[in-house]
Order: sequence, then structure tokens, then C-alpha cells
Amino acid sequence: MSADGPSTGPFVQADYTVSFHRPKLSVLLPVSGSYVGDWKVVNIGLHPDYARNTRSSHTWVRAGKIKKLLQRRGTYDHKGTYGHALIIAGSFGKMGAAVLAARGALRSGVGLLTARIPARGYAVMQTAVPEAMVMTDPNEMIFTEPVDTSAYTALGIGPGMGRDDRTAEALGRILEQFRRPVVLDADALNIISEKRHLLAIIPEGSILTPHPKEFERLVGPWNNGFERLQKQRELAQALRSVVVVKGAHTSVAAPDGHLYFNSTGNPGMATGGTGDVLTGVLTSLLAQHYPPVEAAISGVFLHGLAGDLARAVVGEEGLIASDLVDHLPAAFLKIRRT
Amino acid sequence: MSADGPSTGPFVQADYTVSFHRPKLSVLLPVSGSYVGDWKVVNIGLHPDYARNTRSSHTWVRAGKIKKLLQRRGTYDHKGTYGHALIIAGSFGKMGAAVLAARGALRSGVGLLTARIPARGYAVMQTAVPEAMVMTDPNEMIFTEPVDTSAYTALGIGPGMGRDDRTAEALGRILEQFRRPVVLDADALNIISEKRHLLAIIPEGSILTPHPKEFERLVGPWNNGFERLQKQRELAQALRSVVVVKGAHTSVAAPDGHLYFNSTGNPGMATGGTGDVLTGVLTSLLAQHYPPVEAAISGVFLHGLAGDLARAVVGEEGLIASDLVDHLPAAFLKIRRT
Amino acid sequence: MSADGPSTGPFVQADYTVSFHRPKLSVLLPVSGSYVGDWKVVNIGLHPDYARNTRSSHTWVRAGKIKKLLQRRGTYDHKGTYGHALIIAGSFGKMGAAVLAARGALRSGVGLLTARIPARGYAVMQTAVPEAMVMTDPNEMIFTEPVDTSAYTALGIGPGMGRDDRTAEALGRILEQFRRPVVLDADALNIISEKRHLLAIIPEGSILTPHPKEFERLVGPWNNGFERLQKQRELAQALRSVVVVKGAHTSVAAPDGHLYFNSTGNPGMATGGTGDVLTGVLTSLLAQHYPPVEAAISGVFLHGLAGDLARAVVGEEGLIASDLVDHLPAAFLKIRRT
Amino acid sequence: MSADGPSTGPFVQADYTVSFHRPKLSVLLPVSGSYVGDWKVVNIGLHPDYARNTRSSHTWVRAGKIKKLLQRRGTYDHKGTYGHALIIAGSFGKMGAAVLAARGALRSGVGLLTARIPARGYAVMQTAVPEAMVMTDPNEMIFTEPVDTSAYTALGIGPGMGRDDRTAEALGRILEQFRRPVVLDADALNIISEKRHLLAIIPEGSILTPHPKEFERLVGPWNNGFERLQKQRELAQALRSVVVVKGAHTSVAAPDGHLYFNSTGNPGMATGGTGDVLTGVLTSLLAQHYPPVEAAISGVFLHGLAGDLARAVVGEEGLIASDLVDHLPAAFLKIRRT
Repeated sequence: MSADGPSTGPFVQADYTVSFHRPKLSVLLPVSGSYVGDWKVVNIGLHPDYARNTRSSHTWVRAGKIKKLLQRRGTYDHKGTYGHALIIAGSFGKMGAAVLAARGALRSGVGLLTARIPARGYAVMQTAVPEAMVMTDPNEMIFTEPVDTSAYTALGIGPGMGRDDRTAEALGRILEQFRRPVVLDADALNIISEKRHLLAIIPEGSILTPHPKEFERLVGPWNNGFERLQKQRELAQALRSVVVVKGAHTSVAAPDGHLYFNSTGNPGMATGGTGDVLTGVLTSLLAQHYPPVEAAISGVFLHGLAGDLARAVVGEEGLIASDLVDHLPAAFLKIRRT
Repeated sequence: MSADGPSTGPFVQADYTVSFHRPKLSVLLPVSGSYVGDWKVVNIGLHPDYARNTRSSHTWVRAGKIKKLLQRRGTYDHKGTYGHALIIAGSFGKMGAAVLAARGALRSGVGLLTARIPARGYAVMQTAVPEAMVMTDPNEMIFTEPVDTSAYTALGIGPGMGRDDRTAEALGRILEQFRRPVVLDADALNIISEKRHLLAIIPEGSILTPHPKEFERLVGPWNNGFERLQKQRELAQALRSVVVVKGAHTSVAAPDGHLYFNSTGNPGMATGGTGDVLTGVLTSLLAQHYPPVEAAISGVFLHGLAGDLARAVVGEEGLIASDLVDHLPAAFLKIRRT
Repeated sequence: MSADGPSTGPFVQADYTVSFHRPKLSVLLPVSGSYVGDWKVVNIGLHPDYARNTRSSHTWVRAGKIKKLLQRRGTYDHKGTYGHALIIAGSFGKMGAAVLAARGALRSGVGLLTARIPARGYAVMQTAVPEAMVMTDPNEMIFTEPVDTSAYTALGIGPGMGRDDRTAEALGRILEQFRRPVVLDADALNIISEKRHLLAIIPEGSILTPHPKEFERLVGPWNNGFERLQKQRELAQALRSVVVVKGAHTSVAAPDGHLYFNSTGNPGMATGGTGDVLTGVLTSLLAQHYPPVEAAISGVFLHGLAGDLARAVVGEEGLIASDLVDHLPAAFLKIRRT
Repeated sequence: MSADGPSTGPFVQADYTVSFHRPKLSVLLPVSGSYVGDWKVVNIGLHPDYARNTRSSHTWVRAGKIKKLLQRRGTYDHKGTYGHALIIAGSFGKMGAAVLAARGALRSGVGLLTARIPARGYAVMQTAVPEAMVMTDPNEMIFTEPVDTSAYTALGIGPGMGRDDRTAEALGRILEQFRRPVVLDADALNIISEKRHLLAIIPEGSILTPHPKEFERLVGPWNNGFERLQKQRELAQALRSVVVVKGAHTSVAAPDGHLYFNSTGNPGMATGGTGDVLTGVLTSLLAQHYPPVEAAISGVFLHGLAGDLARAVVGEEGLIASDLVDHLPAAFLKIRRT
């Protein structure tokens, strides 16, 4: 089995795989990865200069890198310093998506947060998240009417939003007017897959966070993991945005085509609502003026680390999306103290 | 007092009873059990082969057995791997039953969860359980309209649902269309006791979870505990399903007539809502593709273990059903680390 | 200053007072008590028989006594064993009283709990207390319609209920039909103070829990603490019920005129809602078939102990009524482990 | 750079600044402070009499001072002893402000709390804060109708209230009738900035809590931090009230012109809702009969200390306003145990 490019079977099912210095690309991919068994990166004592000087098209992201990206807070900072995020999420029966995204944003340092939700979600959001301000759509069930976005430093849109035609239209009108980066998730991406002209108006420097099925709707099927990564790179380059494909070893493609592989997270996070929390975290970091690539790799890392810290307490079966929110503070602290 | 079959009084009230190798059936039954006082299983050094080779119609379930049944998660698993459960529960004034069942399911590893509830419970459920998606019945107060169940890998139905005729009819129509195992609890069982033709359409491999009174409504009265167990076996065999009679030493009858006695749980769990949590746990395990008998004995064991772990913190008087939900993660972890 | 009967000033303000063997009555009373400073009971080595044989009209209640009163749970007990409590509480703007009473009842061991509340409190109660079943009054704002009480083993009525005439009438009709002990608190007592004919229909063995102002409305003013205690005894004897006057060293008068003084509690509990929690605890114990006097002195002791345990964690300013609910389990455990 | 008066650049950016005996005024101001880097007060062994006898127009507030100000509770105190606070806050979409202010008040020792909120916030407040009583405005969305305030020992008004003309008019009518100190925050201050005749009817001994932008709306722009402090002193003297300008080293100007600088708090508190919690704390202390200056410097100190204790657990990014509420009890305890 080739470790650096596509290969075809039959493969040997290994019990344990060792990768020298840093993980080979193939161990990070679902299809080939499942043949690898447990694996571990072994430090073989390469001189640090070797790593720094060897150009690679992909980076394995570890805590040390994130620590350098995290911004320090100043004594005289105030709420305005940390931005004002707008989250558009939720629909009838899926208000939890908006609640989880809002909580994820608040636990990631944003200064102010406003949630735009369908009218029937009003009491739910105000009861569950007192720190969030709420604007309601005139429609009881879904998002139908764009809002003036001039006051916001970042926008997150999509979780639990549904794909109604009126929602699709409102999404288009929001994207046309917003001049800053947007986090596009879930149904926002599903709508864009159907209305492909919307791709052209995604603001530069946005972050798209599809899971593999949503990604397939966006770019069509692939034959193997390497082709999927190639499609991910191409989409990021075409949109001049960041494309995050969620899963084990979530991959983050930068607008320059560089790939980052995340090293945190676990299968306990394969449960409803964890993606909504990630949307909140990424929107929060963008609102705080993190550059998009740094927001994406930091947010993905912190989200997965929160999951790992949660797993240590509640295990994999016991883990629910709210646990990620609850462990985000510890994730930030752990990185700062690395 | 005979330990292996029915017996009649007068009995001696014992302070302490010793049962060799594994507990005799009689100590596990309420009527005779209350004469036994505290009891303890004493290992008398029988060769393991003896236990394995001696056919018995009943098994005393301990942590080691559950540990073997728990499925391991793979790195590349995703939400879909762990199924999508549907819970139909609650009615006006009993929405807590739906909340507790939903929380129990989420804390037991299901990938996605949808709750079908009467319309007036909408804000309650969305506020209390953000991880659950919600579908509302057209009726404000009760369940009246079956749903398309094709997307779900398991169904749990009954807690707090009421016995209205329209609910009974909707239950019948759900059972007719659903082709996978169902967890039937509380009012679903009470309805079936009244409309006995519904017994015939319970999908094979379902799990019924009556408490003794609900069981009596299903099968009629018994003269002693051995007769009750016999009726439990017969019902399981007739329905090709699992019948769980809840109580101290909850008994689980498999479709082949084998009986499993649970070794966890305590009287602090005799409080409103604990059964609703169990429905959630069992539905969650079925949705994750556990075989019905394994789902039943694992779920019952974990639920009781969560109760035992909760009791250590809050005692018996202080224990409420939410405590079981909160201790389910620790129960899974404790078994994994056994 | 006389320690065993009424006295008149001037008094010396003491820094520290020692009471031999058990506290003199005077140190337990507000008016004289505030002159005593800190006090402490010193064991002067009296033979236990002396204490047992000396008839006294009052008892200083300590943990050892409560430990003996707490009922043990049996392995084969079920929800029905621990009764079904009905709490009638809350009105528009005061639904928290119903929530706190319900939580207090659930954390004290009741088997089942139903809350009867005005219609507009429905979502509040179902969201905040999933373990409670809810019945709504036809009136949106207040309690106006009595319910069939035949299913309940105890009734608690009054917290946050208001004094509307329709509520008063409904209270009268409930008291006429209910044949078991009732806990009467707050506005139920205020109504009875105004409609004194209701005194005659309070079921024997009930528990009244006025604070001093509510008690004054019931029995008129007093000249000193000894007179107040005398009025408390007389009311208990006249009603063949238990009269609890809340405050520092809460006093409990039994139907036979005996007085019990509570030894737990602290000034941090002087905050809104703590009395509502006590109503829940007492109703729960009555529902579990505790005899009224035992329910009253145990419930008062546990409630105060929960307050003392809470104070150790949150201090006096930080203490809110919900903390009492949260520490009730530890209070039960502490007594059991005394 | 002059440490005791205004100065102009260029400044040297220092890494570390030492201030002898107590901090110089300049290190406490945002504009000059940001050039100072970390700083630390070094005890240079001045005789305590020197500090006591040297008149200064400003005080650096530390835990020891707050400890002396905190009132002790007496055994026979009751709810009435600790006052009844009224909080008028919240509007459609900003009900969280009312929830957070109410929780802040309750965790700071008030005896009773009533929240006056727009009608649509009813279920939110009753579900989230069971200890608070609620009165609803006839208007669904905003505060429009003054209430009889005779029963309350303090009033807090403003958080999330909006600036509708009807709200402004109702604010004016409340201020005209209320004869005790008021905490004025957020939109109450913004309204007063627009309707300056309201300044004249603010009750003596009130506490105003603007953040710098709100303060600028009240008093106009300033050229440097010293001028800002001078304006703060002048406003306090003119209104015979306390003026708190929030930020790093929150400054409190007493009616006699004396300035107090707070020594607690951190940049993690620069997040939505923390100011609402402070309004609750201050209103609670006024309701408990703390003199206004003592309420202001104690409340500001405790609020910042709660933030510092929260930061130790959740870090700066992870900190949300609810964390301040949760750590208020520990802040009180820490001061008492200093």
C-alpha cells in the first residue's frame, strides 16, 4: 500500500502502523486509513531545520501551532474589541442547532452575539442562552428575510436552517450584501449545492464546513481519498476561501491550496449537534478578527480537543454536543498552558 | 423454603442468605425474595467448565458480560454509523417523560434523535434538549398521527403518551409500517393490553418493558413468582421479542425463553421518570444496531448501574430520574474499565 | 434574665452564653435570643436516664433523633411504595414557588409527583421539572378549581398561590374532600386567616408552616416569645395538627402540645423561595407515609441541614433557594451516615 | 511620562512598571495605561500612619477594605431584613439582560426580588429564575408603564431595556416617584443622555454605571484620562450620586468627589451580559441597605473578583456572563476569609 498517493487493493489489514516523523497522508484518509489500525507518529530525530525547509503541501496540526495562533487579550480591551457575531440558524423542530451554535460562539470569546431565528424559536433561545441577543424572522418556522448585517464582524449561517426556497433566496441576499468572511455550514451548503450560482457570491476568506456527504453534493463524487483532497483544494482555491471537510482527521484546505490535518477529536463526537457547535466556534473566531485560515485550523483543533477532554469524563457513548460547549474553556486553557 | 421452585408458607424470615456459586432463582423474586434478607453470592470454587457446561434457563448478568457486549467505535465512524432513533412520547402534562427518554437516548450513544411530541410540548423539548430534533403532532395534547418511519433505525414509544383512542389507532398504524425493532413502554403497553389484536403486529425482535402492574394487564394475574417468570418467557416466545419486567432484579426474557436477571439498581430508582430513561437507553442501543437481547440486557444493566452510581452521590431519597441520565456516561465508562 | 419564662428588660447584652445539658427555652426565642450572643450547649455529664425520665414540654432536635425517624427502603419497593404527592402552588408571576416546591418534593424521596398550576405556568413547569406531572387549572393566572384528590397520598398547598376569592373557594373545597394530611403554607394560610371557618375543615394531622407574620395573622399578636409559643401549642392542639413557625430555631408544635426546636439552618436561608422548598419536602415525607409529627421535625431538620451544607459552599449572601434543593440529597446522606 | 497628571507623547513602551507603595493614577487609565506594560505595586515599607495621614483624592480598593464593608448577618434576620429589590430590564430579543441581572441580584444576598419585564419575556424569566417574582408590562416588547414602587428598598433599571419613547417616559415617571437609591445602567443612561431633564430627578445616592461610550454620551468627549476622571467626579458631585465608569480598573466617583479604583477583573469579562450582572449585584446591595458608596465599591470589587475566580476555571475566551453569577458566592466567601 502506497503511503503517499492513491493505491488499489488488496491491502493487508495492519494492527499497528508506524509513520516516521510525521504521519503520511494515507493514514489520514478514511478509505485507506481504516486498513492501518492504530498508528502513531514516531520522532526519528530529524533535525528541525529539515522539517522547516522541506516544502510540503500538507501540515499535521498540533497544539504547539495553535498556541502560537491564539491571540492575547489586553487589559484595556472591551466588548467591541472581540467583535459582534451574527448567527442565522434553526428552523421549526431544529432550534437546538441555533442554541448549540450560539453557545459554541459564546464559549469561544466573542464580544457580542446576535442570533437570527424563526419567530417560534424565540422563547427557546432566550431561555437557553441568556447571553445571546435575539432577532426573529417574520416567519414562524424558517429563515426568510435577510437582515442589515453592517453591525457584525462575522456571520455564521446554516445549522438546522432547512432548504426552503424562501430560505435559499434570503441566503443569497445575505451573501450579496455581507462584505466580511462568512461561515457556511449544513443547510447553507446544501442550498448552495442546488443553487450553484450562489458559489460566485460567497465572500472571499469565508469558511465552508461540509461533512463528506455535503461535500459530495458540492463537488460531485470521488474515486479515492486523494481525489477528494484534490477536489477540496480546488474548491478552496476557486472560492479564495477555506474548505473544511469534517470527519476523523478533519482536513482544512486554505485558499492557497495548502492542506491542514487536524489531530484532535474522537468517534464520540459522531452525534447530533457537534457540527453546530463548530459553526459557533469558527464564527466567534472570525468575529474576533482571526484571519480565516487561522480561525479554521484553530477552531477545528479546539473543537476536537474539547471533544477529547469531554471523552475523558463522559466516554464516547455518553458524549453529547453540549459537552463540547462545556469543555471549550478547558480546551483553550490547555492550549495556553501547553 | 425451596430455592428452585414455587413453595408455600409459612416461611422463616432470614437475616442473611447465602447462595452457592450463583443466586438461586428464588432470591430474585419479590414475593419469596422479601423473606431472604440480605443475600450474597459466594464463590464455592466450581470449575468454570462446570458453569459453562451446565445448561441453565437463567443467567445472572454481571459487568463482565456487559463489557463483552459493548460495541467498540471506529475512528472513521460518523453520525450515521450510530443510527437515527425516533421516540414517540409525552402528552399534555407528561412532557417530562419525553424529555427524560430523549436525554436517556442521547447519553447512550445514538447518532441522531428525533422526538415526535404533541404540539404544546414544542418549546419544552427544544429548550430542555437542544440535541434532539422535534416533530410535532397536529394535536396539541396527544399523539394522534403516525409518521413516516423509513428514516429511523429504531423506534421507542409509550412514555407519558396516554391511552386516548386516537393514540391507540396511531400506535397501531406505526406498528404496521415499522419493519425494525421497537421499544414498547408504559402507555403503549397499556393500550396493547386493551387492544389485544395489536400484539400480533409488534415487529419481531422488539423489546417490551412493563413494570409488574403493566405486565399483569398484558398476561393476567399469577399465583407466584415462578408462574410470573413462566408467563414472561411465554410472552417473549410468542412475540419473538424481548420482555423486560422491571423491578428489583429486573428480569429479561429472550425470544428463546432464556431468562436474564439484572444485578444493578436500587430502591432509590423507585421514583417517577426512571422508566422513561430506560426506554431512551434501549431505543438508543437498538438504533445503534445492537441485537435486541444484547440491547435489553445491556441497557437494563447500564440503567441500573447509573442508578447505583447516582445513589453513591445523592442517596436513595435524593435520587431523581435526571440523575440516571447524568450518570449514564459514568456507567458506560465503568463497564469499559472493568 | 430568666431562662425559662418570660422576662422584662433591661437585659445585659452577652457575648457568649452557656446552657447546661440542653438549651434553655429562652435562647431559642428571637426577642430574648438576640441578647444572648453566641451560645453553646455544654454536656455536663448528666446520666442519660435523667434526661429520659425528666418530662419536658420541649425537645431540642438533633441529627441522632432524625436518623432514627428516617425510614429504610426495601429492595422490592416500587414507586407506589413512596406515595403520590399533589402540590397546588403558583400563580401568574409566582410560578417559581411551584417549581421550587416540586423540586423539593422530588429530592426528598416521593414516588410520584403531580403539580396543579394555573394554565400559563404550563411550559415553565414542564421545562424546569421533567420529573413532575402537570395538571393545569382552567384559569390562566390562578388556582380556581378543585381537583379529584383520591389518587394522592398527600397534598401541599399554598406557595405563591395568591389570595383571590376564587382561590379561597377552591381551597375550601379541596380541604372538604381530602381525607389525608395536608401541608398548608403561605397564601393558603393567609386565606385561612381571612376565612376563619376554614380552620374547622383542616384534616387532622396536617402541617401548617407559617412564618411569624403569617402566624400572627392566624392567632393575633403576642407580647413575648413565650406567649407566642403558647399560642403555637394551642393552635396545634385545637387543630389536632402540627404547627411549624419558621425562623431561627424553627419551632414545631405537635398536636399533644409538645414543642420541638430545630437545630439546623442559617441566615443565608432568609431569601425568597426557601419556604416553598420546605413545603415540598414536608409534602413528600407525608406522601411517603411518615407520621405528621415525624414528617415535620424531619423535614424541618433536613431543610435546615441542606441550608447549612449549601452555606459551606456558597456562603450566606450567595445562597438561593435552589441551593437547598441541590443539597437535600447530601442532607439525607449526612443523617444516614451520622 | 508623568505619573500624576496628563502628559503628551511620545511615550516609551515599557515592559514592566513598578509603582511605589500604591499605584500612581496614570497606570490605571486606559490611554496612558496601555504604555505601562505589566505593573505591580511594591510595598516600600512606608509607615501605615503615613498612608493614613496623607490625604489623597483617590483610593486603590483591595480585598481588606471590602471585608470591612461587608455586613454580618444575624441569627434572627429574616427575608425582610435583606430588602426587596425591583429590577426593570429586558425587551424583546434582550430578555437575557433581565435574566442575568436577576441572577446577579439573587446571588448577592437580597431577601426578595421582583422583575418587571415586557409580557413576552414571561416564560423565559419564570423558567430561568424560579427565585424571582415577575410582573409583566402591558406591552409585549418593551417597558412602558411605571409601577408602584413603594414596596421596594432599591430599584435597578436599564439593562436591555431599549430606548423607545414610551420607555423613556415610563423611566421618567419611575424616577419621579421613587424615593430611594436607584441603579441606572445601559439604556436607562442612554435615555437620560437624550432627555437631559431626567438628570435632575435622579434620586440622591443613586449609582450610575456607564461604560466609557455611555459615559461620553452623558458628559461629552474628553481629551485624556485625567479629564475623563474630572468629568466623572463632577457628575457625581452634581447628582449627589455615585458614578461608576466600567472598564479595566473601573473607577467609582463618590458624591464628595473621591475616586476609588477597582483592583479586580480581567479582559475575559469583555463579553455580553457582564454589565447586566453588575446591575443586579449593585441593586441587591442597595436593597440590603448598604450605603451607596459602599454598595458601589463592594459590588464592583465582588463582580470583578467573581470574574477572576471564573477565569481561573474557564479562561478568558471561555468566560461568559453566567460564569460571573456562578462565581459570586465564591467571591463573597473569599473576601470573608481574607
